[in-house]
Amino acid sequence: MSQDQTADRTEGDLRNTGMSLRHDRTWDYELDRIVEAVEERDAEKVGLQFPEGLKRRGPAVADDLRELLPDGTRVMISGQPCYGACDLDTYLMRRTDVFVHFGHSPMKDSEKIIYVPLFSNVDVVPIMEEAVEKLETSDVGLVTTAQHMNKFEAMREWLEERDFTVHTRRGDDRLTHEGQVLGCNYASADIDADQVLYVGGGKFHPLGLAMEHPDKKVVIGDPVNNVVEVADTDQFLKQRYASVHKAMSAEKWGVIFCTKIGQGRWEQANEIVENNENAYLITMDEVTPDRLRNFDMDAFVNTGCPRITTDDGPRFHKPMLTPGEYEIAVGNKPLDELSFDTFHGTW
Amino acid sequence: MSQDQTADRTEGDLRNTGMSLRHDRTWDYELDRIVEAVEERDAEKVGLQFPEGLKRRGPAVADDLRELLPDGTRVMISGQPCYGACDLDTYLMRRTDVFVHFGHSPMKDSEKIIYVPLFSNVDVVPIMEEAVEKLETSDVGLVTTAQHMNKFEAMREWLEERDFTVHTRRGDDRLTHEGQVLGCNYASADIDADQVLYVGGGKFHPLGLAMEHPDKKVVIGDPVNNVVEVADTDQFLKQRYASVHKAMSAEKWGVIFCTKIGQGRWEQANEIVENNENAYLITMDEVTPDRLRNFDMDAFVNTGCPRITTDDGPRFHKPMLTPGEYEIAVGNKPLDELSFDTFHGTW
Repeated sequence: MSQDQTADRTEGDLRNTGMSLRHDRTWDYELDRIVEAVEERDAEKVGLQFPEGLKRRGPAVADDLRELLPDGTRVMISGQPCYGACDLDTYLMRRTDVFVHFGHSPMKDSEKIIYVPLFSNVDVVPIMEEAVEKLETSDVGLVTTAQHMNKFEAMREWLEERDFTVHTRRGDDRLTHEGQVLGCNYASADIDADQVLYVGGGKFHPLGLAMEHPDKKVVIGDPVNNVVEVADTDQFLKQRYASVHKAMSAEKWGVIFCTKIGQGRWEQANEIVENNENAYLITMDEVTPDRLRNFDMDAFVNTGCPRITTDDGPRFHKPMLTPGEYEIAVGNKPLDELSFDTFHGTW
Repeated sequence: MSQDQTADRTEGDLRNTGMSLRHDRTWDYELDRIVEAVEERDAEKVGLQFPEGLKRRGPAVADDLRELLPDGTRVMISGQPCYGACDLDTYLMRRTDVFVHFGHSPMKDSEKIIYVPLFSNVDVVPIMEEAVEKLETSDVGLVTTAQHMNKFEAMREWLEERDFTVHTRRGDDRLTHEGQVLGCNYASADIDADQVLYVGGGKFHPLGLAMEHPDKKVVIGDPVNNVVEVADTDQFLKQRYASVHKAMSAEKWGVIFCTKIGQGRWEQANEIVENNENAYLITMDEVTPDRLRNFDMDAFVNTGCPRITTDDGPRFHKPMLTPGEYEIAVGNKPLDELSFDTFHGTW
């Protein structure tokens, strides 16, 4: 990505994911699995979807695939933004015989979709050596992202060899693997330890983890950017409180129902609108400042991806709250019940 | 819209449509028709879609509707961008019992959709008095947009009373009314006259008309902004030639298939990809500079809305061509065959 694009990104910005990396890496695109599926299904159309940071690899992957596939197979690349396994290009999926989603692990079992997680080949041991120095006791939770899941057992063993008691958990249905976290789900960190070690790229996930579990110390060991630090949610929390305060005087509320397959919370959106005659239900897929600027509202509640609310919040022209924050702003709940918004289940 | 949003708009920018008006007007939202449809269909969910410039009226229209509708009817507003009757929010349409599309005339008959064209109440006579002074002969074509279609017969009569021979035509299936133009279709101006009078808001439509019919003089009588002038396509044409020239050295081509219901040209997109091994098919709904920046291509061909290519072209990081311009850039056609890209038929 170009310099000018990164300039105005706040810490934890959705675009600062582990996928947008300083160091180039060779990924395993698992083309054999794709070719096999095409042959099995006699597929004529193959759709490929990449997360933002990997879209530029799309043409090269398409080239490699076209060499391996039967003549006449059409390969299409999704140009829709993509920020997670929750964010499938359903248009392309429904119109192709084989649909490949790169960069995330499955959120839901599906015959139609091939998930290629793109495991990282980065060595995690050097950063773990440094990171464990920040730990305070020998009880530690361990989490990582889909990209480093291939090293999860090695991480656990490495810690156990050094006499740590490692606490791990699978989390709920939204998570494929034990120890996996998503930007919107940290159920795998609901473990009996006061500290959690996150080994993986970027700050996006550990900052969400620290917001969801404010009682735990979250140590970041980032082997991609070679960074060790303790997650600090101060800036985030200040922004959240500021947004809630601003929204307290709002009269007209725009309530966003996100139409992305894995980001919709219909009941929640409806409940708000039913109980507030000054609330309006707005449906959309991408929730962006540009799209909302045309609406004459005093504040918004986003029932879609919570990370758009918490991370991109300051970029919107009016306060943008999570459903829980909305309840505080309209006086249904006390301010001290402010908590991080997470997503559970599949779709 | 705010000042900072309009600052970087080039002339003819998609967002400079007749819908984005300096003078506020009272529109007829035809709420009775909507209420009737809700009652007839026993509708539980009503979806409302507004073009960009009218989105801010959405909440007020929803309020008025909710007063008239049976208790418990859910009103939803589309937050998707909308730039024409070609640009239906199909997600919301499929999930509501009554779907109302404001600001455009029907592109295709549909039981499901209620089109509310929002006719303008502006008086067209004063601007016509001024505009006819720019006409050179007594033979004149007459065109307008959906917003001023309610005055079309009055315009014709006014001209005929002044001894003009008025040439009008219905155009093709994409156009609902005789004399109607769209940003992408000027078949109603295929008439036997060397000059065409456009009476309507904005320059977006007459500039397209002048590009599509370079042999005709296009006189603009804009009663909304009180402007009379002759359409000048020089700046547009220079940009088009510059883009084609830049794209001549391109190796990797991104070929965009637009997934919007009324903007898809599948055969055209496929043909390009089949005949160029360095072309990659990219599918997307909104075609924006941000979305394409992540793709590592030398140039793009847009088989979707031609006005994104011609009007927003300079905002993309790489040359963006129409399918016809692509043929010139890769050497299949001579440069002097450069022509405006139009859309025909429905979907």
